[in-house]
Amino acid sequence: MADGKNVQVVLKSRPAGEPKPSDFEIVESAVPKPGPGELLCRTIYLSLDPYMRGRISGVRSYARSVEIGEVIVGGTVSQVVESNHPGFAPGDFVQGYDGWQSFGVSGGAGLRKLDPRQAPISTALGVLGMPGMTAYVGLLDIGRPKPGETVVVSAASGAVGAVVGQIAKLKGSRAVGVAGSAEKCRYVVDALGFDACVSHREPGLPAALKAACPTGIDVYFENVGGLVLEAVLPLINQNARIPLCGLISEYNAIEPARGPSLRPILFNRALIQGFIISDHLDRMPDFARDCSAWLRDGRLKYREDTVDGLANAPQAFIGLLAGMNFGKLLVRVSPDPTRYEFERQSTAATVDCRSN
Amino acid sequence: MADGKNVQVVLKSRPAGEPKPSDFEIVESAVPKPGPGELLCRTIYLSLDPYMRGRISGVRSYARSVEIGEVIVGGTVSQVVESNHPGFAPGDFVQGYDGWQSFGVSGGAGLRKLDPRQAPISTALGVLGMPGMTAYVGLLDIGRPKPGETVVVSAASGAVGAVVGQIAKLKGSRAVGVAGSAEKCRYVVDALGFDACVSHREPGLPAALKAACPTGIDVYFENVGGLVLEAVLPLINQNARIPLCGLISEYNAIEPARGPSLRPILFNRALIQGFIISDHLDRMPDFARDCSAWLRDGRLKYREDTVDGLANAPQAFIGLLAGMNFGKLLVRVSPDPTRYEFERQSTAATVDCRSN
Repeated sequence: MADGKNVQVVLKSRPAGEPKPSDFEIVESAVPKPGPGELLCRTIYLSLDPYMRGRISGVRSYARSVEIGEVIVGGTVSQVVESNHPGFAPGDFVQGYDGWQSFGVSGGAGLRKLDPRQAPISTALGVLGMPGMTAYVGLLDIGRPKPGETVVVSAASGAVGAVVGQIAKLKGSRAVGVAGSAEKCRYVVDALGFDACVSHREPGLPAALKAACPTGIDVYFENVGGLVLEAVLPLINQNARIPLCGLISEYNAIEPARGPSLRPILFNRALIQGFIISDHLDRMPDFARDCSAWLRDGRLKYREDTVDGLANAPQAFIGLLAGMNFGKLLVRVSPDPTRYEFERQSTAATVDCRSN
Repeated sequence: MADGKNVQVVLKSRPAGEPKPSDFEIVESAVPKPGPGELLCRTIYLSLDPYMRGRISGVRSYARSVEIGEVIVGGTVSQVVESNHPGFAPGDFVQGYDGWQSFGVSGGAGLRKLDPRQAPISTALGVLGMPGMTAYVGLLDIGRPKPGETVVVSAASGAVGAVVGQIAKLKGSRAVGVAGSAEKCRYVVDALGFDACVSHREPGLPAALKAACPTGIDVYFENVGGLVLEAVLPLINQNARIPLCGLISEYNAIEPARGPSLRPILFNRALIQGFIISDHLDRMPDFARDCSAWLRDGRLKYREDTVDGLANAPQAFIGLLAGMNFGKLLVRVSPDPTRYEFERQSTAATVDCRSN
């Protein structure tokens, strides 16, 4: 059924600082055979996400480390090739966690079947997947934006940030993004409908952010840390909420990074709440209902940055940590057989996809 | 009725860094006369608290600044001298906010009548007053300690910290203090019943704290910031809660202080919540009921560090910011007429008062 080889990207050495291509190794082996109750899937899309930097670092984190020689973990959208599992048939599309490899065998646990007529299957890794749900839960349950409040989100053109700002707008808040280039800022305002966006690569970030938030900041959805957090804290209002989702600016740090003083948190009775989306799976039905509807209505837009070929995954991942991607970063591991079908059905208004 | 002069301590200049005695000025004026509906009080005790540093700094904070030439704000326990207010009679003891002066006139708003037969009147500024309530609300409502969890509190021998650790013990948690000397640490363990206490003036604080918290830290009640916070964060457990009550190590800083990275907050899904006790006055009845009962039962102990004479208030306040006090810092502005009566009634088991 499955021709050829299973291509895998395994961890060759733990990166010190910025990962190098030589920290990864591409190996080939025979395509595995599914055992009783198992199914074999061909990977179509691999999701690349910042959390993976923690998994390959070997330091204490919220999840098990990837060991040297192991396939790197990651969310995938795949098509079933062979199935000994009664719930799945060859040809089904599924979202799972097969990692950085072109074929995966699993027992079906945690697999989610996808209907390519409802939404492009790649969205199961982005706006309708883990990043979208991270935005939804972090913003609504921790940030709790009220109409008229100002919501700031860093990495605003990224997979999570783009959804945060759009939901903030849907809830009647003012949305202000922080992104890594003038082009990304234009996209965030013009395509996604944020009220403003400032670049964190400009020297005047504190002043630009202050100008963009004339009534202060009520919610700061934190993806980045570092200089962005330092620019935000002096502007927070009383009872501000800071969902702490990521600190990507620190993930490659060798020495422990420093942060700003917590004084503004104290004086403003503000809240910082770290969260990991896997603790909030009870919110999945609400998320799926709301975001699917918003996506269908064209009220939720997204952008994908797709890299072709698993061999390019290491370099794409290195670029992700440096902010080189523009939109949800995906690796197309094998051709997407639904692509033509979806493009024929969809209207330009509902999605804003870019394919590199 | 009121003989002599009203002695006042006014702000002469805004301190840069550590306050100097010359930043304060002692002035004398005639004792004021209460107008219609007003009452005149003689100050017995003035409370000295770290928050006052913010009020005299002139920087943005959660409350109005003290202006140059104004009497410095502060909680007081006083006796009514003259009253044109139907609710108060001469001889009544009250807790109010007359500030750093020996007489005060008020309209009665915010005054709390004290019964010297129930508890020493000075406790209305400490264990049964704002510091005690700060400990109660911050620990129970934000920290939410569970039996068997480890609660760490900084400034553990201080007015707030001492109550935090004792309530933690009453709730079945393990209490670990961080304090500023070996003598304070002994007091915290031997007199207050904490499980352990480590000195933040020793070079090995991170290692000592780790040894004192073999199962990690579930709640960190933060009064201090700086190196103590840095030692705590690597030890926090998943879902740790950090009530952020004060950052006294930073209050004299001229340059904005730096803090540790928020990475442990992210990875452990931890919470930091700044709070100001005046937002939580709805909890006053619960606090008064519980802490009065614990105090009567001898389950809640306290220690006072009393300085005689308003003229000594500036130096005592400077010492407070440097951690020189040992227990709740009070200025005895005039003799306490209840003192003998209470000492006759009380038993040694219920309180642990020191009077300098």
